Amino acid sequence: MTPPRFELVSDNTTGIAPQILKGLASHASGRALPYGDDTVCTAASEAFDKAFEREVQVRFVTTGTAANALALACLCPPFGAIATHRYGHVYRHECGAVEACNPGCRLLPIGDDPFSNHAKITPKDISPWLAESRQGGVHVCELTAVTLSQPTEAGTLYTLEEIRALTDWAHSEGLKVHMDGARLANAAVALDDTLAEMTWRAGVDILSFGGTKNGCMAAESVVIFNDDLDARLRRHMKRFGHVLSKGRFLGAQWLAYLADETWRTLARQANEKAQELAQGLQDFSLAVPVQSNMLFVEIPPKNAAHMIDQGYLLAERFRDNTYRLVTGFDTTDEMIQDFIRDIKGA
Amino acid sequence: MTPPRFELVSDNTTGIAPQILKGLASHASGRALPYGDDTVCTAASEAFDKAFEREVQVRFVTTGTAANALALACLCPPFGAIATHRYGHVYRHECGAVEACNPGCRLLPIGDDPFSNHAKITPKDISPWLAESRQGGVHVCELTAVTLSQPTEAGTLYTLEEIRALTDWAHSEGLKVHMDGARLANAAVALDDTLAEMTWRAGVDILSFGGTKNGCMAAESVVIFNDDLDARLRRHMKRFGHVLSKGRFLGAQWLAYLADETWRTLARQANEKAQELAQGLQDFSLAVPVQSNMLFVEIPPKNAAHMIDQGYLLAERFRDNTYRLVTGFDTTDEMIQDFIRDIKGA
Amino acid sequence: MTPPRFELVSDNTTGIAPQILKGLASHASGRALPYGDDTVCTAASEAFDKAFEREVQVRFVTTGTAANALALACLCPPFGAIATHRYGHVYRHECGAVEACNPGCRLLPIGDDPFSNHAKITPKDISPWLAESRQGGVHVCELTAVTLSQPTEAGTLYTLEEIRALTDWAHSEGLKVHMDGARLANAAVALDDTLAEMTWRAGVDILSFGGTKNGCMAAESVVIFNDDLDARLRRHMKRFGHVLSKGRFLGAQWLAYLADETWRTLARQANEKAQELAQGLQDFSLAVPVQSNMLFVEIPPKNAAHMIDQGYLLAERFRDNTYRLVTGFDTTDEMIQDFIRDIKGA
Amino acid sequence: MTPPRFELVSDNTTGIAPQILKGLASHASGRALPYGDDTVCTAASEAFDKAFEREVQVRFVTTGTAANALALACLCPPFGAIATHRYGHVYRHECGAVEACNPGCRLLPIGDDPFSNHAKITPKDISPWLAESRQGGVHVCELTAVTLSQPTEAGTLYTLEEIRALTDWAHSEGLKVHMDGARLANAAVALDDTLAEMTWRAGVDILSFGGTKNGCMAAESVVIFNDDLDARLRRHMKRFGHVLSKGRFLGAQWLAYLADETWRTLARQANEKAQELAQGLQDFSLAVPVQSNMLFVEIPPKNAAHMIDQGYLLAERFRDNTYRLVTGFDTTDEMIQDFIRDIKGA
Repeated sequence: MTPPRFELVSDNTTGIAPQILKGLASHASGRALPYGDDTVCTAASEAFDKAFEREVQVRFVTTGTAANALALACLCPPFGAIATHRYGHVYRHECGAVEACNPGCRLLPIGDDPFSNHAKITPKDISPWLAESRQGGVHVCELTAVTLSQPTEAGTLYTLEEIRALTDWAHSEGLKVHMDGARLANAAVALDDTLAEMTWRAGVDILSFGGTKNGCMAAESVVIFNDDLDARLRRHMKRFGHVLSKGRFLGAQWLAYLADETWRTLARQANEKAQELAQGLQDFSLAVPVQSNMLFVEIPPKNAAHMIDQGYLLAERFRDNTYRLVTGFDTTDEMIQDFIRDIKGA
Repeated sequence: MTPPRFELVSDNTTGIAPQILKGLASHASGRALPYGDDTVCTAASEAFDKAFEREVQVRFVTTGTAANALALACLCPPFGAIATHRYGHVYRHECGAVEACNPGCRLLPIGDDPFSNHAKITPKDISPWLAESRQGGVHVCELTAVTLSQPTEAGTLYTLEEIRALTDWAHSEGLKVHMDGARLANAAVALDDTLAEMTWRAGVDILSFGGTKNGCMAAESVVIFNDDLDARLRRHMKRFGHVLSKGRFLGAQWLAYLADETWRTLARQANEKAQELAQGLQDFSLAVPVQSNMLFVEIPPKNAAHMIDQGYLLAERFRDNTYRLVTGFDTTDEMIQDFIRDIKGA
Repeated sequence: MTPPRFELVSDNTTGIAPQILKGLASHASGRALPYGDDTVCTAASEAFDKAFEREVQVRFVTTGTAANALALACLCPPFGAIATHRYGHVYRHECGAVEACNPGCRLLPIGDDPFSNHAKITPKDISPWLAESRQGGVHVCELTAVTLSQPTEAGTLYTLEEIRALTDWAHSEGLKVHMDGARLANAAVALDDTLAEMTWRAGVDILSFGGTKNGCMAAESVVIFNDDLDARLRRHMKRFGHVLSKGRFLGAQWLAYLADETWRTLARQANEKAQELAQGLQDFSLAVPVQSNMLFVEIPPKNAAHMIDQGYLLAERFRDNTYRLVTGFDTTDEMIQDFIRDIKGA
Repeated sequence: MTPPRFELVSDNTTGIAPQILKGLASHASGRALPYGDDTVCTAASEAFDKAFEREVQVRFVTTGTAANALALACLCPPFGAIATHRYGHVYRHECGAVEACNPGCRLLPIGDDPFSNHAKITPKDISPWLAESRQGGVHVCELTAVTLSQPTEAGTLYTLEEIRALTDWAHSEGLKVHMDGARLANAAVALDDTLAEMTWRAGVDILSFGGTKNGCMAAESVVIFNDDLDARLRRHMKRFGHVLSKGRFLGAQWLAYLADETWRTLARQANEKAQELAQGLQDFSLAVPVQSNMLFVEIPPKNAAHMIDQGYLLAERFRDNTYRLVTGFDTTDEMIQDFIRDIKGA
């Protein structure tokens, strides 16, 4: 029996990239102050300033769910609401973490299909919710923020202009904007944009920036651009169990990830392999164009069953017969060729 | 200027023990299922069964605060109460995590001094709270659980008989018992007891078992003995951001930590150095006997000021002029000699 | 200047019906045990048994929001989800009370229009959410309950068959069913059904039954049919401030309301006047048929502006130019004729 | 068999005072805007301004638990703490309502006996908690407010100087002060002080002012003096189910209660009868002097058993053999004479 092969079901089946492991190991011995008050974290924080081309407030956590929930808890009172895509990760795959970490707040789901408008949200989508919020007084949750994902849950990309249009509108309405950047590196590579351009320069107020899917072990972060929310964020981190005592090992991952734009090198590999995979699957329909490292491919039931059996696919369908494929920093040509060969043979 | 030296302020200033780092690194490459559904976590789970000499339900998290809050959320309804020592970690140093992860529940603080009765709680301490809970009907939070720490926050140890007396009484009153075992390895070494003897064999229902302070990078766990709480625990983990996508790296730490009783080797070093330190500080008063790897030493203000200046001590006092010293798995004779020399010279 | 006239904007602009006031006053003097443990509440509870033709568990509160939120808190774990109509009261007009009283739970909004399918929800609407919940494991909130309103927020009515179809399906899927019966009296009169037929006999598990809109001062209730949830409900009531010390005055309202089917007499008046109003507004379009005591009327902007000016209408529109009119137990012919005359004159 | 006689077990066994019932009834008919936006509530609000001799922000609720929890939710972030007497109502008899309505916050219990220092709290009691909060950074809940009761839970009274000493100290430390005035009328009568003197003139920031125990049906309020917290308070009221649709009937009770200082007339009766009762019980020991309308009397077990049997006493003891007696606005000489006769005969 062949072992399960999860190479293309998600980028979170990857391990630790050698650069990151080396960084971790280099800080393993010796002593440091706990809870992130150490020199490694300070250096990592400075690396964020450099990567984002300005001073930022940044805190490190271990999961994207924590980053999103804690970031949003800083943007929204307990009686507030946050607009999000109906198929966005915060709404669909985090078991109510946003609501659990800010009891009483509500996520307002936008869109009714995982792929229409390429899974992007626009001011027009949010406007009816905003009107309701404004009209309803004390009886309606107060809409205070918007969250978008770059890339989207469908792997598509907002252009800088689209981000800017959303943030301009949001700010004109008094709303804050959060970006879920669990795969932001893949977006930056795909668009050939800088981290700064896609975030604060485009009007984003607070960012979940992830490293885990792209080669780190467990390195996620909350990056605050436009408000002094750090004290609040730290409190929320602590009370939900997210202040690691040996915080330096989060800092160490980030130091290695940001050094020499390692993140870009790693993400480039994933994106290139996604294009190769798309190339090899030209006989199949895609739900949306492949813009980062994710593909949503329509696979006929018979082929799908075979591929699930072989451990190539998870059973989860995203619409009809549409399955997700994801490449990672360590995806090889062989993995792709195997997949293409087997699905065609099926 | 000499660099700060945090060797004796806490065991969470330590790094990663070589055995653990090696274990981590050995699983760095390749692919695995995410969210703890991988073979490393399965093996780690089996290692827990072996270490505890029975089948257990176990889940891995990254902080002791998370382990405690999530474990207790499984034992207590939102209108419930949990008895704890007034100076226990859950009450004093977790920023309300227990209450944040189980909104509405309350911790009932027992004791009015960090050191009296060696920081241990007894049925007699809890009885008045229980009487109030029983008498007050719907108007009073329902006492449903007790949490104790082994070692205590004062570094002292419950004997097996003391644990058993507490759990027997608790169970006879319908209360569940949680043990905070962030430093349980140090207790096991000190008492020369097994993990099983100190926990489920002594009647403990659910355990936070920590590896971080004793050589892991970030490895804490919730171990369930007597109820089928795993599904509930997993939900709480997810919604508070504690299901790591690359869960295998928590499993990997635990595998290495439990293998060949590495935990015992590491904790023995810490405990032995604590005794040596106590030996060297015979001229100073101790608040309680040194039973594990913590010392609470009365240091005259002038000496204390000097030692704080030199980075040997944190400013935090635990009572009057009482300061805490903690040894770790990597504490060397040199660290101890330096400390003794300098404090005597001060 | 004429005073504002709110006669037709809502049934909660009504006062206290004479029968209810008399009942209240009759218990004003003397002493009774507090917190609902009095003989008036006991008698009211027995009156519920009679009204529902079986033994029920019932508790009294002062608002419909409290009744809904507390009832639903009994049906759903903190990581659970509840399916509701997107334009139902719990979703749209209770400022997140359901989520506030059960931190972390989520309401799943069904439907995208206030009037399509007459604002009723069906198993078909809920099925995709259920599939997502089942497929997503720990990452997705667990769907555990459905809430429907009778009459709906659009004033329309589920037939007994429709309720039964929903509850049968829900139960077959392991879901509980809550009914928001803030205006259940109006539904009972309209359908000429009994309270029992529309609720537990049709499979409803727990009910918010309201008296306030139909002549009480502040009398809402949670009625539990199929589970022993009373202890849990009482705790939730207490900790959210809903155990009135002089509980007998809630019992007194209910006693008077249920005596001689006063609720039916009062609701009949409202329903009849709604039909008369509909009759008088035949030149206007209705969004849905008038089935209870609410009308949703399309009013051209010019007429609407005039009517808002006169205090006949609130500015809130429910779709395009659609405004809501509601009759009450004290609506008079004169009120209706005035309205019709003025809107036609506008 | 004689009916139970609850005359002296609590003032919440009383009914509705005639003045209040008349006020309620006078607003029963006609129409008014819902949710407190009516002219009765406006008039009641103005009556508060007059009663407190300045403009205040005031909102009406139906229980003291709600008033306390909602007021405190406005003074404390979710990671905050509030100092309170260990035997104060918010800590002991509200089932965690403060924590339920502000998830994650913590009440810090002060004092270890229901009667020592006459159940009053002082800056000296709170200082150690404040020091801990300041020293602990992100790991310790942030102490942000103090709550005291006037009269205390033991029926004793703070002098104006004592209140001022507490509020001055609190403000100098950046803490807000809440007063639980469920029986404030009794205190005002006893001290012959005005409502203003005992509250904002003495530095209180926010007040729970109760009318229920002193003759209203269900009339409690939150009165805000020093901050613009009304919008926040209203949201919390709504999301915990405390915005009554027919809000005018809360306003109506308050209008009647404040008119002609009805509250003073009613409270005077209760206080006078308490003194008469104390006079008649001179052979018994009192735990504290009788200063308002509560007595804590030591009753030998045999007498107590008899009086409990007769329905004169509840079984709840407050310390050893100490039982609570409470007089009300309707307590008669006969009630007192009966009690004294029976307890002496026992």
